[in-house]
Amino acid sequence: MAANTVRVAFLGPLASFSHQAALETFGPTATLLPQPSFPDALSSVQSNTTDYAILPFENSTNGAVVQAFDLLADREGKYPDITVCGEHYLTVHQCLLVKKGYIYEKGAYHKYTPIKKLYTHPQAWGQCETFLTAHFKGIERQDSSSTSKAAETVAKEEDGYTSAAIASKFAAELHGLDVLDEDIEDKEGNTTRFLVVGNRRGEAGGRMEEVRVGRSGGDSTTTTPTTPTAGIIGESGEQGSIHDQQQQQPQKPKQPKQKTLISFMVEHGVPGALANALTTFQRHGMNLTSINSRPSGVQPWQYIFFIECERDPGLHGGEVIEEVMRDLRGVTEACRYLGSWRDQLG
Amino acid sequence: MAANTVRVAFLGPLASFSHQAALETFGPTATLLPQPSFPDALSSVQSNTTDYAILPFENSTNGAVVQAFDLLADREGKYPDITVCGEHYLTVHQCLLVKKGYIYEKGAYHKYTPIKKLYTHPQAWGQCETFLTAHFKGIERQDSSSTSKAAETVAKEEDGYTSAAIASKFAAELHGLDVLDEDIEDKEGNTTRFLVVGNRRGEAGGRMEEVRVGRSGGDSTTTTPTTPTAGIIGESGEQGSIHDQQQQQPQKPKQPKQKTLISFMVEHGVPGALANALTTFQRHGMNLTSINSRPSGVQPWQYIFFIECERDPGLHGGEVIEEVMRDLRGVTEACRYLGSWRDQLG
Repeated sequence: MAANTVRVAFLGPLASFSHQAALETFGPTATLLPQPSFPDALSSVQSNTTDYAILPFENSTNGAVVQAFDLLADREGKYPDITVCGEHYLTVHQCLLVKKGYIYEKGAYHKYTPIKKLYTHPQAWGQCETFLTAHFKGIERQDSSSTSKAAETVAKEEDGYTSAAIASKFAAELHGLDVLDEDIEDKEGNTTRFLVVGNRRGEAGGRMEEVRVGRSGGDSTTTTPTTPTAGIIGESGEQGSIHDQQQQQPQKPKQPKQKTLISFMVEHGVPGALANALTTFQRHGMNLTSINSRPSGVQPWQYIFFIECERDPGLHGGEVIEEVMRDLRGVTEACRYLGSWRDQLG
Repeated sequence: MAANTVRVAFLGPLASFSHQAALETFGPTATLLPQPSFPDALSSVQSNTTDYAILPFENSTNGAVVQAFDLLADREGKYPDITVCGEHYLTVHQCLLVKKGYIYEKGAYHKYTPIKKLYTHPQAWGQCETFLTAHFKGIERQDSSSTSKAAETVAKEEDGYTSAAIASKFAAELHGLDVLDEDIEDKEGNTTRFLVVGNRRGEAGGRMEEVRVGRSGGDSTTTTPTTPTAGIIGESGEQGSIHDQQQQQPQKPKQPKQKTLISFMVEHGVPGALANALTTFQRHGMNLTSINSRPSGVQPWQYIFFIECERDPGLHGGEVIEEVMRDLRGVTEACRYLGSWRDQLG
């Protein structure tokens, strides 16, 4: 499969943050396919209609995206072959966008004076409250179904230049708007982590291909190395070498950390069952980095746990994941290996 | 403080599920005070304006109520004295409600024929989809801000008997509507667990008083025993005796289990830190029953963990919680004891 034919499913509409994450991860040569819902995105990977799906997994401010966890819980067994094979961190920035040609005479009036109406998604109002209070007190606000839709609405307005949208720079590019102000959000560093999901039985074998990545807004391109995750065989020894050569470290290269996601249930009401499962990771020297739980769907107050753990290839061989899985199967129910990938933060 | 003066804050409007939970927990003699938001409810307890707040904590189908966890995370230190001192399980049933006097001629037409418009909260449409598809296909649906509001709207309609609301039986009683159908929800057993929150420094000392409880829909009254939770001293030896006498067990009474909620953060990026914290519970023989996490609010990708654990008074003395807390403080950051209460399921 050539890199330029990679098909990537993301939650639409066009110019959504998922779209932006897909573009940043897979670059401009990939075929990016908007989907009407998260289940549609995952189904397309399961059926090999697409090669990858990109799913928002957690936000640094708002926490876990429960829809993503519920999909990965796969309570009806709809996605037996999907596997997580990558991650991408997207910093969420909001901008004030106006129609191309928007002008204001300096000195005559303030640059915001012509704007009589604002459009955005309800969540974005809250993210930009300080900016809006300072500059747009009392100005009419119109809710949109997405920030991208807000940008589209402003782009299509025929009534002069009296409206503005709050949306991403990416949405401005797509809808042909001008950016009047950048980074108008209250909090810095609002970041969403996306997971890349592939198909173990697909052409790429649930690995991420070496794809050229063009960062939006930048002109540099980097190469993302292959992350071997087929089956549960993790370590190759050579892994991470591309990355390390790029960093041009003269010494023995430090190998990037590997993250792994595993889900399981424990027998309902059995004392110590959850602790037994969790100590399995510790016994094998795996660092637990996050724990989430969702209702099991089997019986009330039973949970499916999602454990993310980290492996340092300098300390542990790739076989450690197999060992953890073998031990976990002895003390949990419905234990599932959901994939391994290279840590993009560490 | 006499039982009939207990003031309980709940999330309004009147006839909400929180209202119903408050009534079932504290009985008809308590003063139940609707609040515009969850923070208002908790603030009223912190300031001793009310004695207790009742908060939805998790739902058997939808999982954790993140707003409740974010409140208990108390990132700005607004609620230093609040403590969880009880829980209540409320089974969520939806009914089809019509104005009093709604009639239909048997044989002439079906009992649903006069209904041309339905009102309810958006979430309730989804809960009753099977019923709605069977009987109300194509009938106009109007969203309401709450199921209680939907009931109120139907009660106030002057236009004959052409509308119906989907809401609880409790809302029917409060708004004077007739119940045309009961339990129209798709899934059986949809249950919400509420937490009762008190003030450690308030009159009741963060314990639940012995309050008379009138179960809605039933005529029996039971007495809820005092749950000692002040400070972190849990075990009294006599605990649970009222309950057990009621059950008239001739043998040595089995003491009810005690649940405890504790929150903490672990040092960011330190391998093994989370596992060390979790094994503390195991070392002291406490059973972990649930784990949840929310963003710490301190730095991205650091979490505050909420651990619920269970103590069997037949196996562990009350001092075990103090020991767990002492050990946890050595291996975690910002560790907080959030209270203990009697398990209402076990």
